[in-house]
Amino acid sequence: MPDSQPRLIALDWGTSSLRAYLLGADACVLEQRHLPRGLMQLPNAGDGAPGAASFEAAFADACGDWLRDTPQVPVIAAGMVGSAQGWCEAPYVDVPASVDRPGGALTVVRTASGQAVHIVPGLRQRGMLPNVMRGEETQVIGALHACATTLEPRPERWLIGLPGTHSKWVSVHRQTVERFHTFMTGEVYAALRQHTILGRTMQHDAQNDDAAFVRGVRITRGESAAAGMLSTIFSCRTLGLTGALSPRAQADYLSGLLIGHELAGLEAAEPTFARDAGPAARIVLVGDSALCRRYRVALSEYGHACVDFIEHATPIGLWKLACVAGLVHAETRSDAAAVDARPHAIDAKP
Amino acid sequence: MPDSQPRLIALDWGTSSLRAYLLGADACVLEQRHLPRGLMQLPNAGDGAPGAASFEAAFADACGDWLRDTPQVPVIAAGMVGSAQGWCEAPYVDVPASVDRPGGALTVVRTASGQAVHIVPGLRQRGMLPNVMRGEETQVIGALHACATTLEPRPERWLIGLPGTHSKWVSVHRQTVERFHTFMTGEVYAALRQHTILGRTMQHDAQNDDAAFVRGVRITRGESAAAGMLSTIFSCRTLGLTGALSPRAQADYLSGLLIGHELAGLEAAEPTFARDAGPAARIVLVGDSALCRRYRVALSEYGHACVDFIEHATPIGLWKLACVAGLVHAETRSDAAAVDARPHAIDAKP
Repeated sequence: MPDSQPRLIALDWGTSSLRAYLLGADACVLEQRHLPRGLMQLPNAGDGAPGAASFEAAFADACGDWLRDTPQVPVIAAGMVGSAQGWCEAPYVDVPASVDRPGGALTVVRTASGQAVHIVPGLRQRGMLPNVMRGEETQVIGALHACATTLEPRPERWLIGLPGTHSKWVSVHRQTVERFHTFMTGEVYAALRQHTILGRTMQHDAQNDDAAFVRGVRITRGESAAAGMLSTIFSCRTLGLTGALSPRAQADYLSGLLIGHELAGLEAAEPTFARDAGPAARIVLVGDSALCRRYRVALSEYGHACVDFIEHATPIGLWKLACVAGLVHAETRSDAAAVDARPHAIDAKP
Repeated sequence: MPDSQPRLIALDWGTSSLRAYLLGADACVLEQRHLPRGLMQLPNAGDGAPGAASFEAAFADACGDWLRDTPQVPVIAAGMVGSAQGWCEAPYVDVPASVDRPGGALTVVRTASGQAVHIVPGLRQRGMLPNVMRGEETQVIGALHACATTLEPRPERWLIGLPGTHSKWVSVHRQTVERFHTFMTGEVYAALRQHTILGRTMQHDAQNDDAAFVRGVRITRGESAAAGMLSTIFSCRTLGLTGALSPRAQADYLSGLLIGHELAGLEAAEPTFARDAGPAARIVLVGDSALCRRYRVALSEYGHACVDFIEHATPIGLWKLACVAGLVHAETRSDAAAVDARPHAIDAKP
């Protein structure tokens, strides 16, 4: 029988929501909560960012009762809570960075009552076009750990895809995050649908139109994609005008175009993703299963049929980071198994 | 002294506005009006498009008095007024199409009082990604005519750029529109500024920041553009976060990125634009002078320093089309000079 003693409070605190996990031994999830208390939902302190009191109040709502019951349990948090607009800024760690110890130290913020909250730093990539992440580094750590416990032999190179508002693709060699890429795919899709002429002729359909999605992806691999995304997206309208794309298919077609352009960009910029160029990486998708399924279909069009999938990587990532920081002690049996973060097969068929 | 007898009423009737020109001999502009009576401003007939009564009322406001004074003067119109949502659909003409006689016939719609309005057809390009224009074909005709009267020897190949909400680039060989490209640059720029995270940190500055604009354009010519637009635009945010791009410079930087991606796409897709590939075309920009100036700067970064500019090409285009259709008679002296549509030099220096 598993030990049900709470060992760690793990917070995934982003822009739009706050997820709280009460973890027992072996990262076993004893209880979890989802609160609409992301940074954007917290009252503004007047300078454009929420004040400490707002964070304390949300924190108390998320896990005040857990801390009253077991006051000694340590607390760790990842995400935008550690940004300049967050509760306490946890300075970025530059890549290349070890996934086991991203920057070493966690940043500690204390509540008025003295409770320590350990904040995970984000990652930064310097260069002409710098790149940043906060929260995704924890998902990467969780995903690698979950996969490592099930895949034999352990791959040396990983490419972790985190689709979403701002999709990230993280290239890992052994235990080191070497570089990463960001694509604003989800946010651009929403802006195009809601605020351009392309959305006007779209009709909502509860059923996904996979054929239209694949049609969009394939455009991005063909000759007519040479003119780039600003040009290809206009075809949602012209195919509609000429009767070649029904209003119900237009949203999925646009989604296919954008995700396809993302993968075409990744192919051009990331050597471990390009076919027949450099060492291939094991691809793992992390996140919402419906969205990951779309990416799985698009990846298949780009010649990558073998893809793993992890839905909830953050709690296991926070557990691993708490172990490295000495806040909790790793157990002998598989952490990954305990939170059921093992990689799943997802059906890539449209 | 020029003849001030009205010869033609020429309407440039688009989605957002209606411009009316009273033209005398030689396309001389006797009077002009700008009304906020584009298709989007007209009352809806219930099926998503304005009804004939709405078009008649706007038409009467625009030129009813001109027609009362000289009832025999013919009327010609170009733009979305000829679309399926317009007053009367003028079927598209497929490219390649002669610029002098795009499809030959104009479509005639009559008001309740029997006044004929001759509507210019738009152009369509068939293919896997079809393309359409309405109104721009008239600007192209006007621009070619204006340039032809001043440039000696007359170039054989032209590339006419019409920057805007949906930028068009039209490739003309002798008197034939061979093909064209559309880029949703202006509309995507507005959607990104107003409806994504990129706009949140931007501060408005009345002064253009040309250095930031050029910086954005140059990114699109460099190695870091390989990942594509969905990736490069995120640098507006990360350069801001790292203090390398001030809030006041971010809008111009984003504009440079998008216009640069448009030109990179054009370079990949249009043989007469690509450097060192195929026959070079004479480049002419048509439209708003401030926007054309930005494009002029970006074109210079792409190795095209020699660019002509025409601000008002539509009235001369409508005059030419009316001549071809026999509605008016061409005069001996230069039409172009009469409407001051001669190409101007625009300063490309940032």
